[in-house]
Amino acid sequence: MATKAQIRREQLREKLVEAAEIRIDQHGLSDLRARDLAKDAGCALGAIYNVFEDLNAIVMAVNGRTFKRLGQAVGTSFDGSEPPMQRLIVMSTAYLHFADKNTNLWRALFDLQMPNDGSVPDWYRSALKDLFSFIAEPVSELFPELDRVEMDLMTRALFSSVHGIVTLGLENRISGVPPEQIERMIAQVLSRIGNK
Amino acid sequence: MATKAQIRREQLREKLVEAAEIRIDQHGLSDLRARDLAKDAGCALGAIYNVFEDLNAIVMAVNGRTFKRLGQAVGTSFDGSEPPMQRLIVMSTAYLHFADKNTNLWRALFDLQMPNDGSVPDWYRSALKDLFSFIAEPVSELFPELDRVEMDLMTRALFSSVHGIVTLGLENRISGVPPEQIERMIAQVLSRIGNK
Repeated sequence: MATKAQIRREQLREKLVEAAEIRIDQHGLSDLRARDLAKDAGCALGAIYNVFEDLNAIVMAVNGRTFKRLGQAVGTSFDGSEPPMQRLIVMSTAYLHFADKNTNLWRALFDLQMPNDGSVPDWYRSALKDLFSFIAEPVSELFPELDRVEMDLMTRALFSSVHGIVTLGLENRISGVPPEQIERMIAQVLSRIGNK
Repeated sequence: MATKAQIRREQLREKLVEAAEIRIDQHGLSDLRARDLAKDAGCALGAIYNVFEDLNAIVMAVNGRTFKRLGQAVGTSFDGSEPPMQRLIVMSTAYLHFADKNTNLWRALFDLQMPNDGSVPDWYRSALKDLFSFIAEPVSELFPELDRVEMDLMTRALFSSVHGIVTLGLENRISGVPPEQIERMIAQVLSRIGNK
């Protein structure tokens, strides 16, 4: 059974992650301050470091939740009856809309400084694997001639391409365009890739 | 004729931009501090703001130089005799190698906070236009059936796709892979798009 102290720790962790999620959503990752989170969660600044190693660890936890929601958005966007290329386009469009509606949280997935030793947490890799497995299925239907290594490269290349179109498209720097045009770019690129 | 004061201002601007370029290259944009630049340039902290509006304006100037070097790297990578798809792949590979060798400076092109009013400096738009015109030429040869608007979308979509593959490929988060594999991903995607 969990002790009172354990329950309190768990509650504080939860409060801090929720506070960080709200702040990142509203103001972006770069404006996140431990001091503000302590205030939001009603704890002393030092208490944060009793339950999290550092601010990055809190952002990691937020990213875990964002990944889960992203996975749900992409995973429920198709019904499985679509031809594989159509399914890729539908999922990519869901990815775009998720990024458009949760821009700051989605950006934090990619902007968070990763551990310097190059190690990436297991849950992060596993969340990515889930996301990639949605893509891998239609890719394997589309390109049955590819071996496992090439299929894996193709899956990552397609995700990266769509990610690039969404990222630059949502920013007013390279190709700041309305989401409908971003959708068209995605469809243009993917349908030509699938059009063998 | 420039006055002595004008010449001194110009020299200080130049020194600050060079110092910022070296610091961004070595430590990344997020570690850039005005205090360090003042030290590097041998001026008082306040003197910076006599010649630049803020730190962002210095980074903008650095980005201008980086864009120019990037344009040269991409523009000299092909000789014009290649079939259009091959030319796109050669240019994309040059883009990848530039990003790989100048990762922090290249990242600053995309990480710099842009003016809040959504305005982007003319020189920035013009440097981008130059870069895009390299891509637009083979794209128009490959897809003569596209009208101007669709051609423009396709050009931006292809750049964004390659950018996404390069960005995620160079980071150990989504698909941290050696540059040779990133090259293969680029070729895989582009050659299928051109393979009508």
